Amino acid sequence: MLDGLKTVARKASQTRALKALLEDCNVLMSERGEANSVTIGNQLIAHFERLPEDKLISFFEHLANDFSPDPKEVLAAAQDYATQQSAGHLKRLMQVSEPPRQELFRRINRTPGGTATIVGMRRTLLRNLRAHPELQVLEDDLLHLLSSWFNPGFLEMQKVDWGSPARLLEKLIEHEAVHEIDGWDDLRRRLAPDRRCFAFFHPQLPDEPLIFVEVALVPDIPAAIAPLIDKKSPPLTTDQFKAAIFYSISNCQPGLRGVSMGNFLIKRVAEQLHRELPQIKTFCTLSPIPGFAAWLQGTTDFRHIHGKKRGLGLRLSEAKDVLLEASKGDLSALASANAQRSLTPVQVAAQMRLCSAYLAHQSVATSGADPVARFHLDNGARLERINFLGDLSRKGLKQACGMMVNYLYDLQQVEANHEKFVHGEVVHARGVAALL
Amino acid sequence: MLDGLKTVARKASQTRALKALLEDCNVLMSERGEANSVTIGNQLIAHFERLPEDKLISFFEHLANDFSPDPKEVLAAAQDYATQQSAGHLKRLMQVSEPPRQELFRRINRTPGGTATIVGMRRTLLRNLRAHPELQVLEDDLLHLLSSWFNPGFLEMQKVDWGSPARLLEKLIEHEAVHEIDGWDDLRRRLAPDRRCFAFFHPQLPDEPLIFVEVALVPDIPAAIAPLIDKKSPPLTTDQFKAAIFYSISNCQPGLRGVSMGNFLIKRVAEQLHRELPQIKTFCTLSPIPGFAAWLQGTTDFRHIHGKKRGLGLRLSEAKDVLLEASKGDLSALASANAQRSLTPVQVAAQMRLCSAYLAHQSVATSGADPVARFHLDNGARLERINFLGDLSRKGLKQACGMMVNYLYDLQQVEANHEKFVHGEVVHARGVAALL
Amino acid sequence: MLDGLKTVARKASQTRALKALLEDCNVLMSERGEANSVTIGNQLIAHFERLPEDKLISFFEHLANDFSPDPKEVLAAAQDYATQQSAGHLKRLMQVSEPPRQELFRRINRTPGGTATIVGMRRTLLRNLRAHPELQVLEDDLLHLLSSWFNPGFLEMQKVDWGSPARLLEKLIEHEAVHEIDGWDDLRRRLAPDRRCFAFFHPQLPDEPLIFVEVALVPDIPAAIAPLIDKKSPPLTTDQFKAAIFYSISNCQPGLRGVSMGNFLIKRVAEQLHRELPQIKTFCTLSPIPGFAAWLQGTTDFRHIHGKKRGLGLRLSEAKDVLLEASKGDLSALASANAQRSLTPVQVAAQMRLCSAYLAHQSVATSGADPVARFHLDNGARLERINFLGDLSRKGLKQACGMMVNYLYDLQQVEANHEKFVHGEVVHARGVAALL
Amino acid sequence: MLDGLKTVARKASQTRALKALLEDCNVLMSERGEANSVTIGNQLIAHFERLPEDKLISFFEHLANDFSPDPKEVLAAAQDYATQQSAGHLKRLMQVSEPPRQELFRRINRTPGGTATIVGMRRTLLRNLRAHPELQVLEDDLLHLLSSWFNPGFLEMQKVDWGSPARLLEKLIEHEAVHEIDGWDDLRRRLAPDRRCFAFFHPQLPDEPLIFVEVALVPDIPAAIAPLIDKKSPPLTTDQFKAAIFYSISNCQPGLRGVSMGNFLIKRVAEQLHRELPQIKTFCTLSPIPGFAAWLQGTTDFRHIHGKKRGLGLRLSEAKDVLLEASKGDLSALASANAQRSLTPVQVAAQMRLCSAYLAHQSVATSGADPVARFHLDNGARLERINFLGDLSRKGLKQACGMMVNYLYDLQQVEANHEKFVHGEVVHARGVAALL
Repeated sequence: MLDGLKTVARKASQTRALKALLEDCNVLMSERGEANSVTIGNQLIAHFERLPEDKLISFFEHLANDFSPDPKEVLAAAQDYATQQSAGHLKRLMQVSEPPRQELFRRINRTPGGTATIVGMRRTLLRNLRAHPELQVLEDDLLHLLSSWFNPGFLEMQKVDWGSPARLLEKLIEHEAVHEIDGWDDLRRRLAPDRRCFAFFHPQLPDEPLIFVEVALVPDIPAAIAPLIDKKSPPLTTDQFKAAIFYSISNCQPGLRGVSMGNFLIKRVAEQLHRELPQIKTFCTLSPIPGFAAWLQGTTDFRHIHGKKRGLGLRLSEAKDVLLEASKGDLSALASANAQRSLTPVQVAAQMRLCSAYLAHQSVATSGADPVARFHLDNGARLERINFLGDLSRKGLKQACGMMVNYLYDLQQVEANHEKFVHGEVVHARGVAALL
Repeated sequence: MLDGLKTVARKASQTRALKALLEDCNVLMSERGEANSVTIGNQLIAHFERLPEDKLISFFEHLANDFSPDPKEVLAAAQDYATQQSAGHLKRLMQVSEPPRQELFRRINRTPGGTATIVGMRRTLLRNLRAHPELQVLEDDLLHLLSSWFNPGFLEMQKVDWGSPARLLEKLIEHEAVHEIDGWDDLRRRLAPDRRCFAFFHPQLPDEPLIFVEVALVPDIPAAIAPLIDKKSPPLTTDQFKAAIFYSISNCQPGLRGVSMGNFLIKRVAEQLHRELPQIKTFCTLSPIPGFAAWLQGTTDFRHIHGKKRGLGLRLSEAKDVLLEASKGDLSALASANAQRSLTPVQVAAQMRLCSAYLAHQSVATSGADPVARFHLDNGARLERINFLGDLSRKGLKQACGMMVNYLYDLQQVEANHEKFVHGEVVHARGVAALL
Repeated sequence: MLDGLKTVARKASQTRALKALLEDCNVLMSERGEANSVTIGNQLIAHFERLPEDKLISFFEHLANDFSPDPKEVLAAAQDYATQQSAGHLKRLMQVSEPPRQELFRRINRTPGGTATIVGMRRTLLRNLRAHPELQVLEDDLLHLLSSWFNPGFLEMQKVDWGSPARLLEKLIEHEAVHEIDGWDDLRRRLAPDRRCFAFFHPQLPDEPLIFVEVALVPDIPAAIAPLIDKKSPPLTTDQFKAAIFYSISNCQPGLRGVSMGNFLIKRVAEQLHRELPQIKTFCTLSPIPGFAAWLQGTTDFRHIHGKKRGLGLRLSEAKDVLLEASKGDLSALASANAQRSLTPVQVAAQMRLCSAYLAHQSVATSGADPVARFHLDNGARLERINFLGDLSRKGLKQACGMMVNYLYDLQQVEANHEKFVHGEVVHARGVAALL
Repeated sequence: MLDGLKTVARKASQTRALKALLEDCNVLMSERGEANSVTIGNQLIAHFERLPEDKLISFFEHLANDFSPDPKEVLAAAQDYATQQSAGHLKRLMQVSEPPRQELFRRINRTPGGTATIVGMRRTLLRNLRAHPELQVLEDDLLHLLSSWFNPGFLEMQKVDWGSPARLLEKLIEHEAVHEIDGWDDLRRRLAPDRRCFAFFHPQLPDEPLIFVEVALVPDIPAAIAPLIDKKSPPLTTDQFKAAIFYSISNCQPGLRGVSMGNFLIKRVAEQLHRELPQIKTFCTLSPIPGFAAWLQGTTDFRHIHGKKRGLGLRLSEAKDVLLEASKGDLSALASANAQRSLTPVQVAAQMRLCSAYLAHQSVATSGADPVARFHLDNGARLERINFLGDLSRKGLKQACGMMVNYLYDLQQVEANHEKFVHGEVVHARGVAALL
């Protein structure tokens, strides 16, 4: 019963905190708030941080409902502007159609720690958006503002290496999302002289990497991931560096999801490496294909791939079966199955053909596309090479039946490639063309 | 004749550059520009910097005309939103009512040097706005964006002292707008241990101070400027510091005019000094009154000042004459005139009464107000004290008949004071009340 | 046979390298070397680094023999100086009695990397000194020079924390000599907000910590080490800090053995903490007693301890047996043995009496003294408290039968304490006096 | 009379301070001082700084007399060492023949600020050495220690430019000794992009440049100084840089006179520029000849120059007269005199011949040599070219009759050149050979 009382008391206290927070918002939006947003902003942040998630949802709902534009004012301003496109009419239109919560966020953002608070707000919001679709208006505003504030022009690119603060390196271990970092020894290898790591930082979040990319400097475009992340491998020497391989790119801030940073980071890194090591001529990824197995599973008709070549249809169907077996992720079972089959080059080619088809045709689709493929192709990279048995980790087998892919960045071509991609064409190398 | 040909050739080349610049804008706004704004952005900046001012005006006109919202689309979106306030309708409304040039500026801003270019654009624009009022729409967009990007939360406050780079100090000499800095020796005195100087910087303009404030640490609130800026004066010691006097605040970036920074800077400096030197209890300005003489000149009826006190009216009228004589700026003539008159305390009080009335009543007016008074009072400061013969420099006599004023910053009261000011009330000290 | 040939070839090559190195020394000492020591110095360092250890010994022997003062010149200069103490005679005396190898080392030290080379040289020398006592003259010179160059006035003290470079932190893990650091998680706990770590650096060896000390900020002087180095323990808050405990001090450079740094480091850290956290009034160690068990083993006569108190003699003898059992390092055996005995306070006191006697009487002895005790007592600390069962680690039991000790640093008293210690008196707290 | 009393009181106070200082020295040398030199060192420094110059002399005399080696001990140790060259005997010899004041200085040097104090001590000492030759023993010790502590290996070279702290730049203006810097505008030109300035710093004196060199980057070896230091001259662009001209080198610390730094600085700068700007192939000075006019004045017999060429003797004698007229420093008188004479090439050559002879023959002499010539030639530079009318400033005419000289640094040859110079040979270019 005592517990019950405590719960009641805690709830009452939270309700009071929510009320105080809403009051802070009102004050911050008033003339009082205009004069001295820092004090009120600090208080608002403190109240915000004390609220549990369910109260935050109430807070978000309030922002979504009570800080929206007034439809009547908007309509009147639109009519005036339609009648005459004067500066005054346009200014008024802008003012009344911008949701007032944008100004609220800008005022919070003036406070020390305000940027971090808003990023944290959006993280919580995104986590709850599916369950609360009515909060989408809030999400639209936050994405708009954060995209402006985290404009790549405001981001600072820093090299991360073994001389970086432990506090920062710890975050790489935590956030690496593609090929997990297995402790400090693994990390040290990934920061050895034949590796590079770069991250974007924002001046307002000085100790927080926003996104980072890991690069291997190697003699050739690699076909498999295991040697690249082998922590026992001896580092290469500078004269052996011919290609820079982007083998992992990870976001560290869930609250910045959807704010474009990765595409700028890759290009800035390529330019920086080009200056630092002119002997490097090739900039390329070694990427996973996270959507391949799922697509294969759901695909039964390969006619758009084999076209009228009858025999090919059968082989593709067989290749699908082999691949799906691989996707079960059991490496030894796969090995023995393959030993029995003793795959012929033709059979291997059929498997790669399926993968090429997936990447070349599905990546332009609006739904069901491989997200990594979409990212790099939209970014202007070229579909360079399909790698059979490129990733034999459990995850690699499960997601992509062991396949990996290289996307090539030719800085002279990225604009043209992107433009083609926008119009539905995937630029690819000859080797890939042969498979299509 | 050769010269004529050269001019023709130069004009043709400039016309081509303008055309190229407009084409850059189009490309930057296309999908191509989305992918790789840096390359195109660099090119755009290069073209921009080659244009002479008249072509820039043409460019601005193009931005003002061709990158505005479509009135029909706006109206349709407003009607939809009036019918139903869905997230989709709101998003669409936002999209179509935001002038596309805002996105253009955001893309330019992604380029290294983009921020500086946009600030420079606005500087040119502001210089030409009076002659080209149709460019106001462009100015509205630029002020909106720059206010968001130069949000005080993104500004870094740095102490400037004699250990700062010469390159930076040179800019203080150049931009000091209130009490001119007379070379490096004068500057050294202003950065001596009993002085402080703080500036705001933006991460994208690392070597450019945006605004700076000069502070004197003294035993009492000073009544005259000359001793504060006397380069021969010996520095005081730490135990003598009781009050921090903000005696000059100057903007360095004409392209950021109207972006609020000074109010935040003063408060941040006060907080910083409060932490560093807890013995300092008073934060106060010693400010010019640039609009006083002009107002006095144009004012003939003092009834709202003297009310029903008949005799006072005469004295005010006489005080006005004395003051206007001072505003002629001839110090020795003034001295001999005053010697003849041998001013009584009552006469002095009458002069100060006029000044108090100006500051207390005119500062809330929307036009004709003293800009310095408006700045500090709106910022939450208190009208503290009128200083007779506070500034005997030619400029001080001319603008303000030698008067100066202190505005006091009590960080506990600035919010309440600002609120009162917004509602038409000027908070003032008892000494001032006695004059009103 | 091929291997044999290879060995012959390698030996020949090494012999040539040794010869080249000796030639470098001659050139560096000539006028040629005076002008441009950097080039020759670089070459000398390169040759040096290629030599195997046995050739280095030959090199050292050469330096010890051929770069010594000429006895006849020394005698002549001494006679002149005895006759007349003129500046010229003294200068000459200094010149001829200084071994020329000192100038050689000074010239090597002008070269970038020279300091590191000389420190490395001494490391190798020290390792071989016991086997080659004739090299003692060389060691005397190196210690003399390095003591001058690593003068505490030239050392920079830096705080080391979780924001320090991983490259540096790695060296703490490697060199911690007192209580081993068990990986990065353990290290992170030792750098948590209630811990401090400081190291000395030399400008010529910027990435190399020379010596570091670990400090725990706690409410009371601790009696046992385990809680201090428990990586699971939750950090204390600032208001709980009353005492700073130096619980580990480790040298990182074997080539700087015997160069006094630790005593200066402890005092500089105490001063720094005193400024930063004025609430801390107590600066104290929690130290091991590495020589206790060995001393106990070899001691049979306790008369100088028990004096004429007959009964005490018996108890001390019994205490010795119990302690030596503990020193076997088997914690569970010890526990069961003690359970059987169920030690009385008197028995415990007898054990502590033995330990006190060891520290108070043996530390002033020139040989057989506990090195840690000598270090802190010579440094001016006070023998503060004996801690029974303070270190139950295998090493702690083996070396010191589980005993630990606190030495207290009272910065006002360290000079006087040191002076007494030099004259054979160990300053101790009352609690210790009661045991003596 | 009151003044008399005051003087007596002050003198008494100073005598007490001197006594206290001597007592500090004794304590610092005792065991007490060994333990905690910082506290005592601080006190010693404070006492030292309060003493007037005459008391400092007394203090120096005390150090010179009472802290010298004991002649009997020295003789005994020398005899032992002569008998047997053991490590023990050598160590003892070293200990007793080193003046104890060296250990005193080392202990002072452990104190924060100790290095600066010792450098200041030597500055005062050098100023008084001529009047107090008995202090030479002290000077020998200080030079020995400071040469070891300011070893070039311990010095940090920093680029100085317009982004350097004003506090530092101010010191360049103050210390430039060759071609005076005429205020901040002049300084700014000397730090423009076609100029370089580098200084040596010591970690213990972080804000104090020790020595700095000014370099001009130009297309050719210049023959005159005026264009190089013309503050109105427009900066050249990077592609025009072919030669780096060291046109001024200045010491900032009188207390470090005689500690070799300039030779190392020039070579380090040449290496750094060679790396940064590989197109620069020539490293050369444009130097004054401060001793030329004085030498010419005192020289009447030119037979060693003209040898047996009779006519030459006459011409040299005439050239001497013309040159000495120039050395009167009156530029317009000189111009009109020269106009009357309308100098023939032969006459000019005769003047240059005299200058070449001075530099080539006198620079190796132990006394009367040109100090700048000795510095560069001993440093391994080559006598490259004599420049007639190279410096028409009053100082240039007076010291060197307007002559200037280039010394060329060929980093591949400096060692060999230095060696030849030590053996009496001045390496010179063909053009100079033709004049000799």
